Amino acid sequence: MSVKEERAPFTGDDNDTPTLAEIEAQHPADAADTIEGLDIIDQVKFIKQLPIKDAAKSIAEMEDLDQQELITNLNRGLAARILEQMRPDDATDLLDGLQDDLQKSLLSRIDAEDRAELKTLLTFDPDTAGGVMNTEVVILDQDLNADQAVSKIREEVEDKEIPYYAYLTDKKDRLVGVVSLRDILLAKRGVILKELVKTQNLVTVGYNIDKEEVAHLIAHYNLLALPVVDFGNRLLGVVTVDDVIDIIHEEASEDMQAMVGAGADETTDSPWLYSVRMRLPWLIINVIFSAISAWVVHLFEGNITQMAVLAVLMPVVANQAGNTGQQALAVMIRQLAMERFDRKRAWLAVLRELRIGLLNGLIISSLVFCAAFAVTGKLGLALVMCGALGVDMVLGAFAGASIPLLLKELGRDPAQASSIFLTTITDSMGFFFLLGLAGLVLLT
Amino acid sequence: MSVKEERAPFTGDDNDTPTLAEIEAQHPADAADTIEGLDIIDQVKFIKQLPIKDAAKSIAEMEDLDQQELITNLNRGLAARILEQMRPDDATDLLDGLQDDLQKSLLSRIDAEDRAELKTLLTFDPDTAGGVMNTEVVILDQDLNADQAVSKIREEVEDKEIPYYAYLTDKKDRLVGVVSLRDILLAKRGVILKELVKTQNLVTVGYNIDKEEVAHLIAHYNLLALPVVDFGNRLLGVVTVDDVIDIIHEEASEDMQAMVGAGADETTDSPWLYSVRMRLPWLIINVIFSAISAWVVHLFEGNITQMAVLAVLMPVVANQAGNTGQQALAVMIRQLAMERFDRKRAWLAVLRELRIGLLNGLIISSLVFCAAFAVTGKLGLALVMCGALGVDMVLGAFAGASIPLLLKELGRDPAQASSIFLTTITDSMGFFFLLGLAGLVLLT
Repeated sequence: MSVKEERAPFTGDDNDTPTLAEIEAQHPADAADTIEGLDIIDQVKFIKQLPIKDAAKSIAEMEDLDQQELITNLNRGLAARILEQMRPDDATDLLDGLQDDLQKSLLSRIDAEDRAELKTLLTFDPDTAGGVMNTEVVILDQDLNADQAVSKIREEVEDKEIPYYAYLTDKKDRLVGVVSLRDILLAKRGVILKELVKTQNLVTVGYNIDKEEVAHLIAHYNLLALPVVDFGNRLLGVVTVDDVIDIIHEEASEDMQAMVGAGADETTDSPWLYSVRMRLPWLIINVIFSAISAWVVHLFEGNITQMAVLAVLMPVVANQAGNTGQQALAVMIRQLAMERFDRKRAWLAVLRELRIGLLNGLIISSLVFCAAFAVTGKLGLALVMCGALGVDMVLGAFAGASIPLLLKELGRDPAQASSIFLTTITDSMGFFFLLGLAGLVLLT
Repeated sequence: MSVKEERAPFTGDDNDTPTLAEIEAQHPADAADTIEGLDIIDQVKFIKQLPIKDAAKSIAEMEDLDQQELITNLNRGLAARILEQMRPDDATDLLDGLQDDLQKSLLSRIDAEDRAELKTLLTFDPDTAGGVMNTEVVILDQDLNADQAVSKIREEVEDKEIPYYAYLTDKKDRLVGVVSLRDILLAKRGVILKELVKTQNLVTVGYNIDKEEVAHLIAHYNLLALPVVDFGNRLLGVVTVDDVIDIIHEEASEDMQAMVGAGADETTDSPWLYSVRMRLPWLIINVIFSAISAWVVHLFEGNITQMAVLAVLMPVVANQAGNTGQQALAVMIRQLAMERFDRKRAWLAVLRELRIGLLNGLIISSLVFCAAFAVTGKLGLALVMCGALGVDMVLGAFAGASIPLLLKELGRDPAQASSIFLTTITDSMGFFFLLGLAGLVLLT
């Protein structure tokens, strides 16, 4: 019953080249996957044979890098025809990723009206509401009645893919309300549109608002589409819920990958040298930060020569406090990703993590005390280990919870390299506590 | 222009209790946040005063734990009225989280028709399509014409919140197609519904399919709603895109938190003792695994006594290889989260990570060689350090990429504790390479 069994898999497990008929029979999202699995020569061959509309739909569903490679390899006339048939937001995304001269050349081949629209869209920052919005919107005068509205929609809607809502404007083109097409469909004949507008406030967003904030709003209000307006409250377009799913997915990848210093936009399809380039700077920073921990150990080299068992215990302290901190880090980063920032709530969450770290630190260090005493039979050593571990775990919890917040307060990405900063603190301070305490208690 | 400035913040920064009128004027999603910010006595007071429909909408938007606490504190008659007014999927989620006797007691107070539906919904696993589906669906006979369909929808739709699509069935109630309400609205009078069905395959999902797979399908095909069917292809309900956003958010949190051994469903609002309970078992496992690394160091204690500088270098190797592995881990976990599993693609991605690890390992260990030689002036030591670091980084990249895949192949969550497994490998093997190589090269 599941689609999984009915449909061809996303990427062919066999190496047979698909036929044109097979590609045409697929949903554009599946056709895109099939095309991505071909080499570029076959990709071009199939795209040339597909009806332009189908080609446009499938290309719109492909991954950014694959789209760009394909368009670059098509002749420019065909590429321009395909761009004309794509949704303007998809076409803009594609053009945005192309080299400047190719972008110009393609734009010059696109018909004047579409070109003007694309050029406007290209001016918006791709990470803002304006950069992800769709301009195919049904706009109606608020004084129309439901029947007039249906006729108007019938005329206009031909090429507009996804009008769930119609937007109502006043005489000065200012956005005054939103009505779902469902409500227009179900309205009694003769009802004036503005009477259909729900009393609750109209939720809108400025074109310059970050796309993650847009995603939060759509998720929070369960909207299908969120209108994007300019400073004069004139409607520019809408961000639709399907774009939001992509934004949320991207955001989750960015957080998880940025946390450990991988590229925010890396996928397993990125060129491997791109990944090397993204990760190397953070690895270099990490190695420099590790030198701090190494330096702390160096300060106590004498203690280690006297008691090599301290070197045995070092990784336990560092690893355990690091793990404790990462648990706090993960929960905090997710809070910052899913909710709008609320400073008071966020710092209360740090206190919560501190409390969790205290109790877990107490329990784990007690267990470790028993184990260390049982194994070594040395009470002093077990106490030093237990003390250093407990204190470093609490510090780890506090650092793990605070680092994303501090980064946020500094206007940085709360996730960026947070795990690297955290382990620097838990490693270096863990060694300091363990070796320092040992020096004070065991070696005097 | 942004909503942020127009609306009250999600949680009051001031401690003034809001008025009933203020809550009523808010969007249910905002009212939910306001109510969550109150103590339970005020929550009950306001819910009693709100119209039942508004109360139901706001409660549906609250966090699970807050919902449950509030419903538990209302008198049962009112709680039952509110549950009747909620969307059946939301009511089911709420009932699912309550104690058995309270659940039974509330169900017995709900009117017979709603009760029967909720009891059926409660039989589905909450992590499957059946467990998240919404049963308020518009079902039409495929032989109706567009005008008849509009009349039928007008009759039926009163209480149905979100019909974007109407579902067509044959004489045996089997699902045969889907038509958007938009297409019905725009159809020429007299057109028979089945003529409006697009030729592309109907995407459906069995009720027992995992909700994450459902989210993938909706995202992949850009659907607003996905029909859920039984084994006889009869329509049971639909999963809507707004639920998918929640599923994707949950999934991202689960991955990030499970990776480091925090509870998959923890948030900063979870009771702190719940978080302690979720994290403690993994911290204990981590400390046991750390003992492996400690044991490796113990094997070479003699070497450390002779050359305490080895203890200085240990954290650099471990930390650097751990970081390298975590970069691979993050990218792999995100691939597994965002795409349907494809074994061949996944293992190719491991090769890609291995290649990245090799090049980064080469570069970083060369830099570290130079630094170690410059600082210590000891060629042998610098070579040992560089060799151990390079090999451990490559191992880290391979382990980081493979661990989620191995977990997946074993039928486990690919993220679960993966970071803990990874650092155990990079720590213990890093110490083994460093101390063992030092023993062979420097101390013979």
